[in-house]
Amino acid sequence: MSVAVPSGAWLADELQTLADLRDLSRPGFTRRPFTKWYEEARRWIAQRFQEAGLEIRIDAVGNVIGRRRGTENLPAIVLGSHIDTVDGGGRFDGIIGVLGALEAARCLRQSQTPLAHPVEVVSFFAEEPTDFGVSAVGSRAMAGVLDDHLLQQRDSTGLTLGEALLRSGYDPKNLGKVRRAAEEISVYLELHIEQGPHLEQIDKPIGVVSAITGFRRYRFIWSGRPDHAGTMPMNLRKDALAGACECILDIEARCRRELGTPLVGTVGKISVSPNAVNVVTDRVEFIADIRSPSSGKLEQVCNEAGAAAKAIAQQRGLAVEVVAITAELPIEVPPLIRAEAAAAISDLGVEPVELVSMAGHDANQLARMVPVGMIFVRSKDGRSHCPEEESRIEDVRLGAEALLGWIRRLDRKM
Amino acid sequence: MSVAVPSGAWLADELQTLADLRDLSRPGFTRRPFTKWYEEARRWIAQRFQEAGLEIRIDAVGNVIGRRRGTENLPAIVLGSHIDTVDGGGRFDGIIGVLGALEAARCLRQSQTPLAHPVEVVSFFAEEPTDFGVSAVGSRAMAGVLDDHLLQQRDSTGLTLGEALLRSGYDPKNLGKVRRAAEEISVYLELHIEQGPHLEQIDKPIGVVSAITGFRRYRFIWSGRPDHAGTMPMNLRKDALAGACECILDIEARCRRELGTPLVGTVGKISVSPNAVNVVTDRVEFIADIRSPSSGKLEQVCNEAGAAAKAIAQQRGLAVEVVAITAELPIEVPPLIRAEAAAAISDLGVEPVELVSMAGHDANQLARMVPVGMIFVRSKDGRSHCPEEESRIEDVRLGAEALLGWIRRLDRKM
Repeated sequence: MSVAVPSGAWLADELQTLADLRDLSRPGFTRRPFTKWYEEARRWIAQRFQEAGLEIRIDAVGNVIGRRRGTENLPAIVLGSHIDTVDGGGRFDGIIGVLGALEAARCLRQSQTPLAHPVEVVSFFAEEPTDFGVSAVGSRAMAGVLDDHLLQQRDSTGLTLGEALLRSGYDPKNLGKVRRAAEEISVYLELHIEQGPHLEQIDKPIGVVSAITGFRRYRFIWSGRPDHAGTMPMNLRKDALAGACECILDIEARCRRELGTPLVGTVGKISVSPNAVNVVTDRVEFIADIRSPSSGKLEQVCNEAGAAAKAIAQQRGLAVEVVAITAELPIEVPPLIRAEAAAAISDLGVEPVELVSMAGHDANQLARMVPVGMIFVRSKDGRSHCPEEESRIEDVRLGAEALLGWIRRLDRKM
Repeated sequence: MSVAVPSGAWLADELQTLADLRDLSRPGFTRRPFTKWYEEARRWIAQRFQEAGLEIRIDAVGNVIGRRRGTENLPAIVLGSHIDTVDGGGRFDGIIGVLGALEAARCLRQSQTPLAHPVEVVSFFAEEPTDFGVSAVGSRAMAGVLDDHLLQQRDSTGLTLGEALLRSGYDPKNLGKVRRAAEEISVYLELHIEQGPHLEQIDKPIGVVSAITGFRRYRFIWSGRPDHAGTMPMNLRKDALAGACECILDIEARCRRELGTPLVGTVGKISVSPNAVNVVTDRVEFIADIRSPSSGKLEQVCNEAGAAAKAIAQQRGLAVEVVAITAELPIEVPPLIRAEAAAAISDLGVEPVELVSMAGHDANQLARMVPVGMIFVRSKDGRSHCPEEESRIEDVRLGAEALLGWIRRLDRKM
C-alpha cells in the first residue's frame, strides 16, 4: 500500500512562514513564549493542523494538539516538538519536529492510509528555557511534573510563571487536565535537528537517537578574602577567582579525557565579587553543567570534580561549597523503537546510524511516562541556538519521510 | 631645641571623630566624595587646620590646604593625604596621613619651633577611585594632570566628573589655578598605613618607603564561539572562558614565581557573555593589574603574559586582544629623603627598615613634579579597604613623631 511522500517545497515554504513570524527587535529568529509573535505562530499552526484534517484541541497549558483517529481503540502514537525559540535563535530547532509531524499527517490523509493507532501531533508550549528559568513547560505539564515550585519561579520583573500563564488565559488550577495517563499514549516520537556536528562528520543526513543524555547541574560557591591588589603579596592571597579558574579547567580536562562514552562539561555562568580592578576576588559562584548518557560515568565525573574542587580550595586556603541543582537521569530509547526507526531509514535507501542526544527535548518529559524515540537531522557545522543554525531542506524532508515510515511500522508492531 | 611630642590620645580622639562622620547606610566606615558626610568631614578638618594656626585655603578642586609660614623665602614642605574612603572601607587609610601631619603642625606651633621652610598640610580631594573611575582627583589637579579626558568620565547615572565638581561648587574652568609650580614645593611627605603585611611580619611599627610601585593595567578580550553546552563535543569547542581561566592562572603563576623583586598580578574584574548555564562562553573581558617597583621586571612580565595569552588563544582556536589601559612608572624615593626618614626613625629608638609601597597614593601624583617620600605604619594582618583595617594608636603616634622629626631634618638639609 503506497503513501504520499513528504514535500520539500511545502516544508521549505512553511519553515519560511514561521521564520517570518519573529520578533524583529531581537537578533536572529526570535519567537519567545508570552509574546505576540509566539501567539500568532501558535494560531497559525493550529490552523494548519485543522487544514490537515486533524481534530484540534488546545489544552490548559497552551499545548496545541491535533488528533487523527485510529481504526482501533488503541493508545495514540504522539508526535511533536515546539515552535518557540531561544533569544537570537534559529529557524529549525523544534520547528522541523512540528512541521515534519504535520507533513507526515498530511501525507497519511492524502493517501487515506488507515492506521490502527490514533496519531496526535503536538506543538508543545515553551520548550526553550523561559525567562522564569523553567524549560519544557508544555511537555512537563503533559507528564504531570509542572509543579507549584516551578510555577512560582519568577522572571526579572518579579512575575511568576503561573501568573504569566494566567495572563495568557491558562489557569494553572486546570493543569491536572493537561496531564495524560500513560495508558493513552503508546509511544512518543520526535524529529529534531542534531544541534551537534556528528552526522555532518560521518556524512549522514539523518540518524536514530539511541539514548538521551542525563545531566547534572551544580552551583560551586567559592569564598576567599578581598585583599588589596597591590599590597597583599601573592603567597598570602586567598583569591577565589584563581581557585575557580583552576576548578573550571579541571572540569574541562576531566570531560576532554573521556573518549569512548559521550561526556561534556561546561561552565558558562559565573559571577564574581567584588568584581573590582584593584581588589583580589572574595567570592565566585559558577554553575557546572555536566552531561553523559551513562549514568555511572556521570556520577563518577561529578563526584571526582567535587573532590577536586575541595582539594583546590584546601591548597589555596579557600572554602568551596558544591550544591546540586538539577539531576536528570539518562533516557534509553527501547530496542524495538530504535530498530523500527533504523528500518524506516533503510527503506529510504539510507544507511541507518545511531547517535546520542546531548541536549534536552520535549521527549525527556514524555519519557517520564511512555517510551520515546527520536530521529535527528544533520546540522550545518553543528551550530544551534543562533541565527546560523541550518539544515538542508532535503535532509529535513528525508527526516519527515523516515518519521512517516516509522509511524507506519510501529503502528503494525505495537 | 626640644619640640612637643605628638599625642596618641589626640590622634585616637580625632580618628574616632572622623570614623563617626560616616554614611550609616553603607557597610564599614564609608565616606565617599560628593556626599554630605564627606562635605561635613572636610569642613571639620578645615576647622582643625585653622585651630592649629594654619592659614586656610580651599583650592578650586576642593583640596583643603593649611599653611604655616617659614622664616625664609623657600619652597614649602608639603604634607598630606586624604580623608575619603572606599565603599565599605576603614578608619585609617589616608586619614592618619592628614591627622598625623596636622598633629606635627600642632606640635611645631605648640613649641613655637621656627622652620626655614613653609609647611603645608593638605587634605587632598577624592583620592580613592571615584564612581567616575578616576582616583586621586585633588592631587592630580595639583600636579596639573586632571585633564579633560578624565573630567569627561561618567558614573553609572551618566554624570561626568566635571559636572559633579561643578555641582559641588568647583568649576573645572578654574583647574589651572590648582596646579602648583614645581618651584613652590621642596618636597612632598606622606604618612600612610602600609595596607600590607610586611611590617607586621618583621615586627616593626613603622618603615621608610624606598620606592612606590609602577603598575600597568591591560584589558584582555577573548573571543570564542557560543556553542550548545550539550551537543558540541569538547574537542570542537572554542570556549572563551576556559581560555581566560588558563590566562588568569598563567598571570598568577608568573607573579608567584618572582621571589626577589616585589611583583604582584591580579585579575579582579571580569565579564562573561552570554553568561548562560547551557551555552559555551563566546566572549570574556578581564582586566589584569600588574605591579612592580622594577620597571624592567614590569615590562618583561607584561610582555610575557601577553605572549602567553596569544599562545593559549592559538592552541584553543580563540582570538585574544590585549589592550593597554594604564601604565604608571615606578617612583624612586630620593636617597636624601630616605636617609633622613631613617634617621628620624632612629632618633625615636626604632630600627629603621625600608619597604616598597605596592599601592598608589596622592604621593604618586605629586612625584610627577617634586621629590616625594613616605613613612608607612604597620597594618594588622595587612588588611585594608575593609572595616577590619586596623593600626595600633601607638604605631600611628610613632609615625606622626617620625614625620615631625623628618620635617625638621629636611628643613635643615634642603
